[in-house]
Amino acid sequence: MAFRIILVGTTHPGNIGATARAMKNMGLRDLVLVSPRYFPHEDATARASGAEDILEAARVVDHLDEALTDCVYVAGASARSRAIDWPYMEPRECAQRLAKENIAGNVAVVFGPEKSGLTNDDLDRCNTLLTIPTAPDFSSLNIAMAVQIICYEIRLLQHQPPEASEPDVPPATGAEYEHFYKHLESVLTESGFLDPDNPRLLMRRLRRLFVKASLDKNEVNILRGILTALEPARNEGGDR
Amino acid sequence: MAFRIILVGTTHPGNIGATARAMKNMGLRDLVLVSPRYFPHEDATARASGAEDILEAARVVDHLDEALTDCVYVAGASARSRAIDWPYMEPRECAQRLAKENIAGNVAVVFGPEKSGLTNDDLDRCNTLLTIPTAPDFSSLNIAMAVQIICYEIRLLQHQPPEASEPDVPPATGAEYEHFYKHLESVLTESGFLDPDNPRLLMRRLRRLFVKASLDKNEVNILRGILTALEPARNEGGDR
Repeated sequence: MAFRIILVGTTHPGNIGATARAMKNMGLRDLVLVSPRYFPHEDATARASGAEDILEAARVVDHLDEALTDCVYVAGASARSRAIDWPYMEPRECAQRLAKENIAGNVAVVFGPEKSGLTNDDLDRCNTLLTIPTAPDFSSLNIAMAVQIICYEIRLLQHQPPEASEPDVPPATGAEYEHFYKHLESVLTESGFLDPDNPRLLMRRLRRLFVKASLDKNEVNILRGILTALEPARNEGGDR
Repeated sequence: MAFRIILVGTTHPGNIGATARAMKNMGLRDLVLVSPRYFPHEDATARASGAEDILEAARVVDHLDEALTDCVYVAGASARSRAIDWPYMEPRECAQRLAKENIAGNVAVVFGPEKSGLTNDDLDRCNTLLTIPTAPDFSSLNIAMAVQIICYEIRLLQHQPPEASEPDVPPATGAEYEHFYKHLESVLTESGFLDPDNPRLLMRRLRRLFVKASLDKNEVNILRGILTALEPARNEGGDR
């Protein structure tokens, strides 16, 4: 089922290109343009930057209704609070709802012209408003940025982060940690840095430090190699 | 505490303006530009579209280190999988971590040049990678779009600020980490453990190890004390 982005009355063709790129980055392909001021246009192509195929496949129509005929659920982007108390969603909730409705049919997110946004007539055709949270004193998002945010939220729902793959190097075992700590303690004692009458606090701090790092086997080997290279006895020429 | 966005080597000034707008929309204000190719520039101003104040207040520096000296936690944006298995987070988890660390000090998210992204040298200075999930066949996000997504996730957290209590010991800053790594590298070179002609891989592994531990100031001091105690020159009686 289609997951559609619809741009209504877009003024700057660069924003159409940036929208195509944002969509393709997040795996969406169905773009419909309702009465764009300039399209096709070189600025659109330039900003698409690898997403020209999305632009070429974009449908251009005269009225929003034509873009929505086959849609079962529609969200209309809006920064403004409206006189009528429309239902609205933030991007995360909206993406979840769209994904759910998308099982049954085509869904769409609609964005209005850069300056004015969607009209009340347009919003009448939407099931919900999509409102992106912003700083209260500077709420006017670039339209392609708004597209990017909702497409990102949609992407997150599709993409299951790969199950943490087996690390290349296995983690150090408890015994390896202990051998390392013993080695460390002996080198620090030899050097005089650690008071053998009261080693506890320092060793505890060092244990905590290395445990925070979740050492792997290679890392323990590197640290032990360093300790061996820095052993005071060794650096005194071994003649004691 | 500052929540900083850092752009390294940005090629297209329009992206700097779009970044400023994305930040201001989501309530962030601290922008640092590391060696931008063109700045100030009319394209940056045009795309800022109401966020010119962010551009005017932006700091321009020559090297990433200058942007990080006062930072306690840094995420580096990266689409690429790396040879060394870096720890990485997706935007939601990363925003949560940044917000938590932000209670104790300044935090930053770093974005590399449009074409090439951050270098391994840059990533060495980051506590984690930030990886934005995308469609596998078209993963190259516009940089300002990537900024928008992480700023959006940060904004969402401000609805519900984390409860995390002030840690007893403040986390180490970027400068403290760098001084420690420099000290470590010099001691390892002196001891012969590190080949000065090819220090990179070992130092990178050690950086990764310590960054995983999220060192606090005390821990860095302990580690530097150990390095001083184990310096080969010192253990040869200091007579060279």
